[in-house]
Amino acid sequence: MVPMELLATLAQPTPSKIVLAVCDGFGGLPHPETGRSELETACTPNLDALANRSQCGVIEMVGPGITPGSGPGHLALFGYDPIRYDVGRGALSALGIDFPLQPGDVAARMNFATVDADGNIVDRRAGRIPTELTARLCARLRDIRLDGVEVFVEPEQDYRAVLVLRGPDLSDRLSDTDPQRTGVPPLPVRALEPAAERTATLVNTWIARARELLRDERPANAVLLRGFAKPPHIPKMTELYKLRAAAIAVYPMYKGLARLAGMDVLDGGHSLADEIERLRAVWDQYDFFFLHVKWTDSAGEDGDFARKVAVIEQIDRELIPAVLALAPDVFALTGDHSTPSVLAAHSWHPVPFLLHSRWCFPDHVDKWGERAARQGSLGRFPAQEVMGLLLAHALKLAKYGA
Amino acid sequence: MVPMELLATLAQPTPSKIVLAVCDGFGGLPHPETGRSELETACTPNLDALANRSQCGVIEMVGPGITPGSGPGHLALFGYDPIRYDVGRGALSALGIDFPLQPGDVAARMNFATVDADGNIVDRRAGRIPTELTARLCARLRDIRLDGVEVFVEPEQDYRAVLVLRGPDLSDRLSDTDPQRTGVPPLPVRALEPAAERTATLVNTWIARARELLRDERPANAVLLRGFAKPPHIPKMTELYKLRAAAIAVYPMYKGLARLAGMDVLDGGHSLADEIERLRAVWDQYDFFFLHVKWTDSAGEDGDFARKVAVIEQIDRELIPAVLALAPDVFALTGDHSTPSVLAAHSWHPVPFLLHSRWCFPDHVDKWGERAARQGSLGRFPAQEVMGLLLAHALKLAKYGA
Repeated sequence: MVPMELLATLAQPTPSKIVLAVCDGFGGLPHPETGRSELETACTPNLDALANRSQCGVIEMVGPGITPGSGPGHLALFGYDPIRYDVGRGALSALGIDFPLQPGDVAARMNFATVDADGNIVDRRAGRIPTELTARLCARLRDIRLDGVEVFVEPEQDYRAVLVLRGPDLSDRLSDTDPQRTGVPPLPVRALEPAAERTATLVNTWIARARELLRDERPANAVLLRGFAKPPHIPKMTELYKLRAAAIAVYPMYKGLARLAGMDVLDGGHSLADEIERLRAVWDQYDFFFLHVKWTDSAGEDGDFARKVAVIEQIDRELIPAVLALAPDVFALTGDHSTPSVLAAHSWHPVPFLLHSRWCFPDHVDKWGERAARQGSLGRFPAQEVMGLLLAHALKLAKYGA
Repeated sequence: MVPMELLATLAQPTPSKIVLAVCDGFGGLPHPETGRSELETACTPNLDALANRSQCGVIEMVGPGITPGSGPGHLALFGYDPIRYDVGRGALSALGIDFPLQPGDVAARMNFATVDADGNIVDRRAGRIPTELTARLCARLRDIRLDGVEVFVEPEQDYRAVLVLRGPDLSDRLSDTDPQRTGVPPLPVRALEPAAERTATLVNTWIARARELLRDERPANAVLLRGFAKPPHIPKMTELYKLRAAAIAVYPMYKGLARLAGMDVLDGGHSLADEIERLRAVWDQYDFFFLHVKWTDSAGEDGDFARKVAVIEQIDRELIPAVLALAPDVFALTGDHSTPSVLAAHSWHPVPFLLHSRWCFPDHVDKWGERAARQGSLGRFPAQEVMGLLLAHALKLAKYGA
């Protein structure tokens, strides 16, 4: 593995342009009836033709057998060691809504939820209440005061929100209150180290008062907290690689990941068409574009094989020709993890990866898919190596050594 | 990755013989008109037949996306971690001419160059003046004295020379004076750390006096210095692997690399035929032969696709049958990096690798080339692993563990 630090010594700014399109949860598994995966089932003439004149492979985000969350998946794609740079969910959520986290802050991802009369969770997402209601509820929760710390409660999207504590000597070594299932009550926060006892007490106090304030709300009468985290210390890949980088994404967490890496975060609107329009609009202003496509993952998570196939066909129809029309020097298409519809969850399976540039040795793949990609010349390799390849193919790396 | 130290504990001397033939800049890229690379275009019946009964793969010298200089490329082939053992160009040049570098010396690679009346560089190689003229100019530059340090000025080959400073408290943390382009003046040497200020001043003084002495010379009226370096501390692979190793090369830098690794350096004459003759002559005296073939790289660097094809065909015609006639126990054929003619430069592309021994599982490759090699059973792997394979196939490694 080439360390980021070595890449940084070789990186040089050039006008050449790189597009890294990340289709969330891209990889899948065969449908039991057809024996073909979502990618293998989809009719993708543009992707197939592109793969035919590109290099293919499959990437592992963290390592064999490890199912990555979106955080480590994206960090690996951006060149970070996802084990060394472990970013907590709370910090990611705060970054995603552009909350100005300060050193020492502790952030947690918050869900509004529904509990029954016995206090057992009925719905971990409170019927997916809209963002507007979440914003109003957050405003009410801001009335809660705690001794010696400032408290911020910020809406994210739909039923999602962020809780941030600010003050001296806070710890993020706290357990989640979200039990990740229904029929049981939320868990109390536990300190995972002695120095976290005071913070745990503060958070439990806050939760109790929040339950009071939300008592008469329906369906959002409770909160679940997870991923307590301090702001991460991560070098900016934009500085290391000397890139002017733009991130185009629809959902907050991916914007947060891109911001963490040093990219300018541009709002991707609400649809793939919006994202493509934004890409075209800012094409002249940047030399690296991270474009995040969420809906492959959403369909996979819902176990909806046909919908995931349809999203892949939409990507083939809309995204591929639009990017090729812009004629980037390097175009990479991949995912941040696999989300097989038959598993209805993230998985550990390697993710297909396609690299197109003038300096490729084409693999002459006929039909794009997991198995075809695996036969490509890049083979199976760590996602952390992707950035080096992208920079090399864009001729942005000087020679190493005499 | 098996560390050198572990290999060293397992290595045992045997009479079996290994030939490692390194064709500089071996790998290429497809010609835009034919879609076939230099290797895929060349008519190579001997190589094809050899590949058919050998194991193939492609190697990465430093890591994915990294374009290696010849130094790291060769060190990786000899089993060294090219990031851990970073050898400066100046030290390599000094080793190449067999200059007895001492600890604390600082060496720089020197070019004679041409500057115009305004002091701007017109030719970074002074019209490629011959070695004899370079030797006479070096002799004149030896008249320059500096306070407190000894100065050595040694000719290398053609317009190339080496400058060595010897004395207390010298630093090699100095910037190059070679701006790597014409139309601008040579750069002054800058100290890259405070402790290097004195050395920088000494070198700048030396350069100013050299300019005085060369003022009336044409075309060599200036010098360019780069790659300031102290002698590297590198364990000898010959001792680690218990080999009696001979290096056969034509150009100084490759001799320097082999000497650094502990090999006996034998002059390779001026041509491939000379090198083959030398290999035959010393066959009984060694059990490891590093044979360096420069001309694949020269043609690639010149962007001359047809000439690179012709060199490959010459290798097929002359080198392959000659080596096979000697019946080595292990014959490996590869490069130290790729130099695609279409890029006219070193590149990051993995280098095809062929391993022939009695203990191979043959891949039954039909036509030798980058893509065929990539489909071979060795796949894509780090060049640092090559030495372990060579030693194993020569039955020079004991079993590890009980």
